[in-house]
Amino acid sequence: MIMYAAPIEKLIDALKKLPSVGQKTAERFVFHWLASGKKEVNDLRGALEELLKKVKSCEVCWNFTDTSPCHICANAKRDHTMVCVVTEPPDIAAIEKTNEYHGTYHVLRGLIDMSAETELSDLKIKELWKRLSENKITEVILALNPDLPGETTAMYLEREIKTKWPKIKTTRLARGLPMGSDLQYADEITLGSALKNRKEV
Amino acid sequence: MIMYAAPIEKLIDALKKLPSVGQKTAERFVFHWLASGKKEVNDLRGALEELLKKVKSCEVCWNFTDTSPCHICANAKRDHTMVCVVTEPPDIAAIEKTNEYHGTYHVLRGLIDMSAETELSDLKIKELWKRLSENKITEVILALNPDLPGETTAMYLEREIKTKWPKIKTTRLARGLPMGSDLQYADEITLGSALKNRKEV
Repeated sequence: MIMYAAPIEKLIDALKKLPSVGQKTAERFVFHWLASGKKEVNDLRGALEELLKKVKSCEVCWNFTDTSPCHICANAKRDHTMVCVVTEPPDIAAIEKTNEYHGTYHVLRGLIDMSAETELSDLKIKELWKRLSENKITEVILALNPDLPGETTAMYLEREIKTKWPKIKTTRLARGLPMGSDLQYADEITLGSALKNRKEV
Repeated sequence: MIMYAAPIEKLIDALKKLPSVGQKTAERFVFHWLASGKKEVNDLRGALEELLKKVKSCEVCWNFTDTSPCHICANAKRDHTMVCVVTEPPDIAAIEKTNEYHGTYHVLRGLIDMSAETELSDLKIKELWKRLSENKITEVILALNPDLPGETTAMYLEREIKTKWPKIKTTRLARGLPMGSDLQYADEITLGSALKNRKEV
């Protein structure tokens, strides 16, 4: 039984494909737009259209961008001897916010995950090897999530790089206690790493 | 400092206007679409366009609809002597799901709320009076939320209807314990109503 007018049902169905959006949330979104007036809906429609038209992948680092190469790859002031390997484009924004890194990036677009249907060939690994072969890269930072797929992928990349380009330094992000955390609630691996990597003050 | 390509930032800003969607959720939505491919984005864009073009207000009951009068107002099998007054269009769907009501509706499009900027004249109250004057309505059910704005609005409508149309029966939804609830945690007003309105079995 259809509860709402057909165009409303259709929009609800389209919104339900979003992560963690169910029937109720999708309904709330649609009725928010219906109440907000045409301008807001039109703005969103226009923004989606621009996304479709203008956003593509940077052919160097595989970040999402509206220029190719993207503004980071095209920036001569960045250190092009360093590549920071990340899983997805939003990871770049997270690292950029720290203002601690001035090299380039490489987005894998996924991780090696035995439980998911990601194929090794879907990842931008070949593209990374091409960059390491053709450019004067001296360090690869593996900035992958510290979980099982992240660790598996990092270990695989590490081994490949050490074999094929023994001169390139491979590093990983430091493990330790996050700001504002409670020592009592830290898991043993994190606390163990924090101890092992303790710094003199 | 712009973190993402301009079209991505623009879409994030448009999404942040949705209820309970902040920067992080909006980012997740946009990157979901970028990963999902063009079809899903295009479907959503089309659905928004249809919403803009096809959905309007029913000029009888003020529900959102793609036909005016809406399919409920136009349905001769429904009981047109009864009007159920609700706050917003989604309330109609909630009542329809019960299969207990076969009359018509009237959407106020808001409530009398001293703390908000809703004006009495924004509500579809004049339109309700017009229906009560022109049609053979015998009962008005006030199906408003049992909270302060809902109660205030119900009391106001009740008084007006009793004065202007003394022959029309005005009713409210029953108060009582909801299914699956725990007597110990029921507030005293609900439990008091449940006691007062107890039914012989």
